[in-house]
Amino acid sequence: MPHGSRLGPHPAGIGACTRRLIGYETRDPAGAPGRIHESDFMSDLRFDVLTIGNAIVDILARIEDDLLAREGVAKGMMRLVDGAQSAALYDRIGPAIEASGGSAANTAAGVASLGLRAAYFGKVADDALGRIYRHDIRAQGVHYETAALVGGAPTATSIILISPDGERTMNTHLGACHALSPDDIDEDVVAGSAVTYVEGYLWDPPLAKDACRKAFALAHASGRKTAITLSDSFCVDRYRGEFLDLMRSGTVDIVFANDSELKALYETSDRASAIEALRADCAIGIVTLGAEGAVALRGTETAPAPAFPIDRIEDLTGAGDQFAAGFLAGLARDLPLAEAVRLGCLCGTEVIGHVGPRPATSLKDLAAQTGFRL
Amino acid sequence: MPHGSRLGPHPAGIGACTRRLIGYETRDPAGAPGRIHESDFMSDLRFDVLTIGNAIVDILARIEDDLLAREGVAKGMMRLVDGAQSAALYDRIGPAIEASGGSAANTAAGVASLGLRAAYFGKVADDALGRIYRHDIRAQGVHYETAALVGGAPTATSIILISPDGERTMNTHLGACHALSPDDIDEDVVAGSAVTYVEGYLWDPPLAKDACRKAFALAHASGRKTAITLSDSFCVDRYRGEFLDLMRSGTVDIVFANDSELKALYETSDRASAIEALRADCAIGIVTLGAEGAVALRGTETAPAPAFPIDRIEDLTGAGDQFAAGFLAGLARDLPLAEAVRLGCLCGTEVIGHVGPRPATSLKDLAAQTGFRL
Repeated sequence: MPHGSRLGPHPAGIGACTRRLIGYETRDPAGAPGRIHESDFMSDLRFDVLTIGNAIVDILARIEDDLLAREGVAKGMMRLVDGAQSAALYDRIGPAIEASGGSAANTAAGVASLGLRAAYFGKVADDALGRIYRHDIRAQGVHYETAALVGGAPTATSIILISPDGERTMNTHLGACHALSPDDIDEDVVAGSAVTYVEGYLWDPPLAKDACRKAFALAHASGRKTAITLSDSFCVDRYRGEFLDLMRSGTVDIVFANDSELKALYETSDRASAIEALRADCAIGIVTLGAEGAVALRGTETAPAPAFPIDRIEDLTGAGDQFAAGFLAGLARDLPLAEAVRLGCLCGTEVIGHVGPRPATSLKDLAAQTGFRL
Repeated sequence: MPHGSRLGPHPAGIGACTRRLIGYETRDPAGAPGRIHESDFMSDLRFDVLTIGNAIVDILARIEDDLLAREGVAKGMMRLVDGAQSAALYDRIGPAIEASGGSAANTAAGVASLGLRAAYFGKVADDALGRIYRHDIRAQGVHYETAALVGGAPTATSIILISPDGERTMNTHLGACHALSPDDIDEDVVAGSAVTYVEGYLWDPPLAKDACRKAFALAHASGRKTAITLSDSFCVDRYRGEFLDLMRSGTVDIVFANDSELKALYETSDRASAIEALRADCAIGIVTLGAEGAVALRGTETAPAPAFPIDRIEDLTGAGDQFAAGFLAGLARDLPLAEAVRLGCLCGTEVIGHVGPRPATSLKDLAAQTGFRL
């Protein structure tokens, strides 16, 4: 049977391409059943990318950096706050705007904006912000059916403080995200998604990591690929051992990190050695480097791409998320590795030119104008 | 007693300047008690500008113009929708962002951003969007104490459709705004505000016009000034007679209109004749003309100012509101009339360069950089 016939309308999708890109032939399949040979009974490919994450409404406010000092919060990080802390901080900041966010959800929105098929799992409450959240992700064309939490905590919010240089510092109240559990993993969607991508932030709520492990196992059992973003250097500090175990056990195939997360993971200030460690620990590693662009690693292959020029950085919120969207879309469309990195850089550039974590324009049109053929 | 001693820290504020700017000496005081001579018992000036309006959270989404045709809605207008219509429209639009809005509230935010003292009356519900609304306007430095509606309709929303050319079309569900009544008029705030400015949209909810009339009477009884924006040409069509009566009876001193509202008011397509009619009907008339700038009329004086250049119009939402903020601030600071118009144009220009109806930067800093001394 020709391979493409099982892959739906995109025969060169991730299901096909990453098997080659990741170079399974060179890796030990022990302990990772189904990673070499796709199942003969795998479901039809319904989605190019499934993402799982904390479903969060962003409250975006511009600040001066001295507020961060007064709040005692490290610039650029994500910190968790409870409801009272969130309310108190809200009282101390200026006017804000609200936009649906959440790292992995932003990536799903980016994948859909690129014209590919995306799905998302994440937990909101049955409240006003939850309804806004559901609208926004569905209106972007993302498949989203996770049941809303009724009678519990409110929809999660993150107060995102945008510094004059565009760097963002996040204060997240997880609220309803605490209720995400393995029960929220729709097995058919996982089995029908070429890659399942999760955010490292999911190791914070109590049951979400179990949901991720369930999804990873289902994905591999269906001959699909798995991916994770390390999310935040402090998150890496909290879960370093678990993240390395996911990588070294082959539970995740594709790993995204930025420079600080990479260095935190390997507890080193030396980027070069950390990159080589990442190369050894996963099938595909991707390191984003801000103005220096990004680089993907696959076996002995090293695929860098430069950043796109930008007049002014308005808001870095979502930059990494949209990079991931572009890179995963590039894999799904069987682009050369360096071109997938370059597409990631393009998508990341779009989102830092305006306030908010998701594309303000069609990434599909932007990619076409930039010469990508998706 | 020197005049300034009654006017607080801004002796050249509206209370002083508009008496001269409006040129009362040339107008008939009959039927407008207190409009010539400020009361000897007037309260201390606490606010430069008080605004009253529908308190609305904007839901801002980019669209293609064909959506307007499918929805059967005239581009650039505001139409009222009920809850079911709002929900149905929301289902048909793409991802959005949320931002506090409401025409007169946007003006209050602009006045505060310019560094002047602003107050606002407007009705939200005791719900999540109402709390966001309250935060945003207070965080901008606006005095806002209107009691939230409990157990009734939700906080008002307006689905604002932004066309590729930046024009916005608004679909407003008034919700809790229907509950604004004369009881919400804080008499001390009115008496302590140099000018009370209301939006014509307030003639839509049942009791809000009574609240406006109460505020106008209190303002004049305290020797203060009154102002109205005509809001929207369809709004003018609904309330033409009442608006003209407010003007011709001297109930309002200062009237803001854009070109289409002005023409609707006088049921003419001839701008020049409409401008002369406006000049005759109010103490100060101001007509905004988009890319042609704006012009203020005071007796025989005509004070035009050109628009400021702008690279790209992102979103016209709030342009008229911020023009009003700049113009009123200019009056309050005793600027020459043409300079007040020019400051209005500057503030309007800031807000059309980004999505959202309120300033994204400090208008005070922007005005200073542009050479205004406020």
